[in-house]
Amino acid sequence: MRQVVCTTTMNHFEKLVEYFSKFPGIGKRQAKRFASFVIKHPNDAFIDDFVATLRKAREEKTVCTRCMRTFFSTHPADKNDGVCTICAPGTVSPREALMVVEKDVDMETVLGMNVFDGDFFVLGGTIPLVGKRGYDMLHIKELEKRVADDAPRGLKEVILAFSLTPEGEHTRLSIAKTLSPIAEKFGVRISTLGRGLSTGTELEYSDNETLANALKNRS
Amino acid sequence: MRQVVCTTTMNHFEKLVEYFSKFPGIGKRQAKRFASFVIKHPNDAFIDDFVATLRKAREEKTVCTRCMRTFFSTHPADKNDGVCTICAPGTVSPREALMVVEKDVDMETVLGMNVFDGDFFVLGGTIPLVGKRGYDMLHIKELEKRVADDAPRGLKEVILAFSLTPEGEHTRLSIAKTLSPIAEKFGVRISTLGRGLSTGTELEYSDNETLANALKNRS
Amino acid sequence: MRQVVCTTTMNHFEKLVEYFSKFPGIGKRQAKRFASFVIKHPNDAFIDDFVATLRKAREEKTVCTRCMRTFFSTHPADKNDGVCTICAPGTVSPREALMVVEKDVDMETVLGMNVFDGDFFVLGGTIPLVGKRGYDMLHIKELEKRVADDAPRGLKEVILAFSLTPEGEHTRLSIAKTLSPIAEKFGVRISTLGRGLSTGTELEYSDNETLANALKNRS
Amino acid sequence: MRQVVCTTTMNHFEKLVEYFSKFPGIGKRQAKRFASFVIKHPNDAFIDDFVATLRKAREEKTVCTRCMRTFFSTHPADKNDGVCTICAPGTVSPREALMVVEKDVDMETVLGMNVFDGDFFVLGGTIPLVGKRGYDMLHIKELEKRVADDAPRGLKEVILAFSLTPEGEHTRLSIAKTLSPIAEKFGVRISTLGRGLSTGTELEYSDNETLANALKNRS
Repeated sequence: MRQVVCTTTMNHFEKLVEYFSKFPGIGKRQAKRFASFVIKHPNDAFIDDFVATLRKAREEKTVCTRCMRTFFSTHPADKNDGVCTICAPGTVSPREALMVVEKDVDMETVLGMNVFDGDFFVLGGTIPLVGKRGYDMLHIKELEKRVADDAPRGLKEVILAFSLTPEGEHTRLSIAKTLSPIAEKFGVRISTLGRGLSTGTELEYSDNETLANALKNRS
Repeated sequence: MRQVVCTTTMNHFEKLVEYFSKFPGIGKRQAKRFASFVIKHPNDAFIDDFVATLRKAREEKTVCTRCMRTFFSTHPADKNDGVCTICAPGTVSPREALMVVEKDVDMETVLGMNVFDGDFFVLGGTIPLVGKRGYDMLHIKELEKRVADDAPRGLKEVILAFSLTPEGEHTRLSIAKTLSPIAEKFGVRISTLGRGLSTGTELEYSDNETLANALKNRS
Repeated sequence: MRQVVCTTTMNHFEKLVEYFSKFPGIGKRQAKRFASFVIKHPNDAFIDDFVATLRKAREEKTVCTRCMRTFFSTHPADKNDGVCTICAPGTVSPREALMVVEKDVDMETVLGMNVFDGDFFVLGGTIPLVGKRGYDMLHIKELEKRVADDAPRGLKEVILAFSLTPEGEHTRLSIAKTLSPIAEKFGVRISTLGRGLSTGTELEYSDNETLANALKNRS
Repeated sequence: MRQVVCTTTMNHFEKLVEYFSKFPGIGKRQAKRFASFVIKHPNDAFIDDFVATLRKAREEKTVCTRCMRTFFSTHPADKNDGVCTICAPGTVSPREALMVVEKDVDMETVLGMNVFDGDFFVLGGTIPLVGKRGYDMLHIKELEKRVADDAPRGLKEVILAFSLTPEGEHTRLSIAKTLSPIAEKFGVRISTLGRGLSTGTELEYSDNETLANALKNRS
């Protein structure tokens, strides 16, 4: 056994904790547990394959040029101008309605519900209430182009389907304004999701705005 | 100090615990704490006044003959045929819309929001999905009479404003059917609150029905 | 139907809400639900018997002159100098150990566990860390008298069994000081409950003091 | 834009979700969010450095040959027979007390509290109540050797510091039995952490065992 005091550097462990802290919804404590887990994992093959899978998944990732959502394809041609399987049927002639959502998972949620048979477009986020942070990441120009492309070919309605939150409302109003010239030119209707009671809403605990909307939209 | 073993009866304490257990949302443990609190309270005046207040409040309680909600009045005449201050203005000529809610607190919630200026009617509960328990307590006959009375005098719409729960929906459909003969006879519209996204709804976490409603009611 | 606007007073209802708000652990919302429940309860007999039970339980309530806890007895003689069934056997000759607890429910908890076969004394609360509020309600003089009475007749140990909270610790130190003259005079040991890991304690989540105590009291 | 339907394979994404699902405390939903996060991350350098850090941290990882905990060192010699900085001072002559804990984090917790100045040993887990799963991973042989090595050189006490859980208790009793021959031979005391009230324990809510321990260990 060595009798000298060994050099202990915590740097890479601590750096790894920092990385895990940047994962969505992860605090310092859990980041530490993850770092411990991957570092102390007794099986080298587990770690090697985890890393290889991550790399391959990133390689296969591509962004659909029509709906802007991320999808995975091993087809080399997709890398640059791929269209995902959901959008492909609409490339010849677009469907009548185009639903604009905030993010990939919203599109997947709506798809999974089987309540809408139009086309989709993923904006990539919401327009910030204050400042411009992240604004450049949004596919606003691409949305304008998409509407301009599809309108002469049969698109009749753009549904702005954002969350009923301050950010979602701000984004809806802003996008509606941006699209209005093209929409008016081609006679495309810009609509938004209906408001009112949602499943499980109890009158006693409902908020002012929801009740006002529910009254206004009564049928 | 007495040297004999005293007789200890827990009966009235335990009986009191039973009573508190019947209070809404109270379990055995809390019922025991309440019983201890009122029994061990050092101030006799506190307990006497608590009981006196309860008795007086029950005496002053009356049910509004128009909207069926409970209100409090010291006016002796109210005891039998009282009309609450909210309904009173509508007795000469009814407002155009009558909102039917499940319970007093729903009416108070809507009133507090200042989003509706019509009349109210409290059904007294929901129609059970299974069985008939509590059915007799509902003011269904009184609602029919109210609509029949008000329709010739200016009532144009009955809004069925129940919670968007299975019980609320069941009640809505059942009441709509019950009222339909009178409604048709007098040309009164039977409507229901609008459905869709409610404040705070995020698309990712919304349910199938809410999204379907939001799409159907888009504007 | 009366055509005049009725007088509505909410006073007794609101006063009742105030009373329920003083119940332990009850907020405004729940107090309102309780007031509604007792006022709107359709069965007069329920309310009458609830009130009668409360009154009878208060009449039967007596405080044990030995342990100071509240108990219930229909025996008229108990009203002034009653001794509860738990203390009665110890009146002839006291047991070797006397456990001093904060409140009735602590005594009941220890009794229910069957881990202690000595006598009990209920202090009636904790000595406040700041100020003197509630100090007069504590049975400190009675405890001194109890120890002075029992020490010559066989009492060997007073166990100060308070919660391991700042208030409990403060009370323990203060009571130990108060009792020390009598204890020394009669050779009565003043002890306190052991500290260390309690059931379920995980080392990773234990606090400094607990671990220090657990180390000090290791065996 | 390509007019043909592209090939979409979700395999590597889904495989990555599987990997993240194996992280401690991670469900399917969060695993999916993590996979999305690392795959869609726009910055290749972030991912590359994350992976490089993970690899380097694993390379630097070594297990202390004295306390068996994992530590990080860039010193090549440590890889095979390293002793961590905490153990190093004790290698010449061991401290009087050796605390045996379940896992690395327990040792770090105790170190952080500054309540103990003896040596440490990490068992690597608890002995399962049923079956033998994970038993081989425990450093039981190494603990026996450690005690046999240190006992002639000044070790006086082995403190079994496991959690007060069924698994911890089972492990304590089993390890005590395993060590008893060596302990008896060299006159080493085997002790365990004290039990009783822990910080914050309220008598009213304490459990039977804790109170029994607190009474037994009263002082």
